[in-house]
Amino acid sequence: MAEPIIALTMGDPSGNGPELSVKALSSGRFSKRARIILVGDMTVMENARRICSSPIRLNRITSVCQAAFADDSIDVLDLGVFSDISQLKLGQVDSRSGLCAFLAVKKAIELAMEGQVDATVTNALNKEAMNLALEQTEGKYSDGLTHFDGHTEIYAHYTKTKSYCMMLMHHDLRVSHVSTHCSLREACDRVRKDRVLEVLRLTDSALKSMGIARPHIAVAGLNPHSGEHGLFGHEEIDEIIPAIEQAAAEGLDAVGPVPPDSVFSEALGGLYDAVIAMYHDQGHIPLKTVGFVYDRDKGQWKALEGVNVTLGLPIIRTSVDHGTGFALAGSGKSDETSLVNAIDAAIAFAGGDSCGKA
Amino acid sequence: MAEPIIALTMGDPSGNGPELSVKALSSGRFSKRARIILVGDMTVMENARRICSSPIRLNRITSVCQAAFADDSIDVLDLGVFSDISQLKLGQVDSRSGLCAFLAVKKAIELAMEGQVDATVTNALNKEAMNLALEQTEGKYSDGLTHFDGHTEIYAHYTKTKSYCMMLMHHDLRVSHVSTHCSLREACDRVRKDRVLEVLRLTDSALKSMGIARPHIAVAGLNPHSGEHGLFGHEEIDEIIPAIEQAAAEGLDAVGPVPPDSVFSEALGGLYDAVIAMYHDQGHIPLKTVGFVYDRDKGQWKALEGVNVTLGLPIIRTSVDHGTGFALAGSGKSDETSLVNAIDAAIAFAGGDSCGKA
Repeated sequence: MAEPIIALTMGDPSGNGPELSVKALSSGRFSKRARIILVGDMTVMENARRICSSPIRLNRITSVCQAAFADDSIDVLDLGVFSDISQLKLGQVDSRSGLCAFLAVKKAIELAMEGQVDATVTNALNKEAMNLALEQTEGKYSDGLTHFDGHTEIYAHYTKTKSYCMMLMHHDLRVSHVSTHCSLREACDRVRKDRVLEVLRLTDSALKSMGIARPHIAVAGLNPHSGEHGLFGHEEIDEIIPAIEQAAAEGLDAVGPVPPDSVFSEALGGLYDAVIAMYHDQGHIPLKTVGFVYDRDKGQWKALEGVNVTLGLPIIRTSVDHGTGFALAGSGKSDETSLVNAIDAAIAFAGGDSCGKA
Repeated sequence: MAEPIIALTMGDPSGNGPELSVKALSSGRFSKRARIILVGDMTVMENARRICSSPIRLNRITSVCQAAFADDSIDVLDLGVFSDISQLKLGQVDSRSGLCAFLAVKKAIELAMEGQVDATVTNALNKEAMNLALEQTEGKYSDGLTHFDGHTEIYAHYTKTKSYCMMLMHHDLRVSHVSTHCSLREACDRVRKDRVLEVLRLTDSALKSMGIARPHIAVAGLNPHSGEHGLFGHEEIDEIIPAIEQAAAEGLDAVGPVPPDSVFSEALGGLYDAVIAMYHDQGHIPLKTVGFVYDRDKGQWKALEGVNVTLGLPIIRTSVDHGTGFALAGSGKSDETSLVNAIDAAIAFAGGDSCGKA
């Protein structure tokens, strides 16, 4: 088969997404494995190339059919939001940047829904900047909507998806989340049999699409020690165990509830193909503990590994699992590992040669 | 100074504590650095020595002054609970074992409170077995009480301590907990300014006793992204930030709230001397993710590193940070690293030569 075509969004222009894109796409890593289109802004990308002192050429395009897919250039699908580099405010919340980031995501989804690309990969956007832009433009570019919680909700809206969940991956550690951006109290409320079962099904299906014939999935408890048989907390008994039993009845290979403080060590040791986490930090803490490496001397992250995948969409979407890195924007020093991981994962999901990196 | 004298409890006789003790104390690791007394049962320890095929001798004593403190033997302060090895039920909840485990802890505390030992280290006990024993004996050995939540509560009771918290340590990663064994919903309720401040003070004080002149302490948020300024969850604004401000007013170097999913990576990178975790799994997940290593091929843990310390007691107490390992009891295959870590930490707290291992 031909290499999959991937639409990569530039991310918030005020953050490090443009630089990460230059670094990831200048490396030749994806040569012969994927054909990548950067969806964003030509002015911003030219600036990012300069910051990174990259020899790569930029090929401005306005449609996929114009792409050169050459090793020595990046095809930039230009949304034309910035007419002059003086409009770019690095390292801060800015509505022009927010609009540009939003439009890139919307365009990437459109390309995937139309079948013009095989997968989408997103750099980080700044929620505040995006929502500021949507409010200022009164929903002109966003179906009249003036607020999205984040990337996932944009994808859900434009693909008309109701059933989805976030999976984080770091090498063989894969964690799906029952809930993400809500308070911890609300997260406790969201641990319901139907939702746990939904996330189990989405995860099982995603793992099968990755080539794992019979995924072995661990479901974490909500409470410490999974509540010790109801001694502290009843969600395991009332919601989680019934979901696991229902999943088993449907033929899924699901086990648990496994105590939250040992399930990730077991998964890292290869015991499970994925873990279902009951809330944002239950899954994010172990992933970032192993994937994020902080360098005290330099006062910055020296590695940001990991991939964010939205399961349940009709199209493929992977993402970096870090933020916009405003503090490092313009320095050219941001680490592109997570973006490389995300592109590798997208290639794998699209059935291409992932080099086992996802 | 002379090497500190340490009372090490044997743990639940039906678990792997006796074997771990034989392995840790047979190694010569603590020679010239500590004088260790094993508080437990001679019959059980003889069995454990046999299981481990250890050449070490066992020296039965009934008081600290009888200890030989020789490199080729273990001084066993014999509580005489088992008269015959046939009474020992390995790998299961048993009230005789529960009683023995409890009495050893009580004795170790007594020795420390009397100043006969400089520190105490505990192996794991089984709460169900212990409480079964306390109920069956109608509180005869436990001031009329028939239930303890765990080790920490036994220590609090017998040392008359009201203000205490659990710290987990793995090398330089140190995490104190605002709450431990309660439901996640109750843990949210327990995030109160006064308690966060108390844990900050206890942690600051403990770090200073470890020789860190001005401890730099990060306070984690409760909610994902620390609630994003009240967008999802208000505990950061209502309770955590006021506690940090009060601590700063008292001269402590405390920062936060730091997003829970990045604070541990930063701490591992050396940015903080300790992290205050808001609930059991927030602290236990990263500690065990880095400290516990699972071996899929052997179907068992190949490393269990980490130390549990109770802060706020008038005496020193460190502990293994794993359970009784019933599944491995009798195999001689349990990994003693966590126990070695715990003894090293106790030596350090007692002002001895820790060899930098704590």
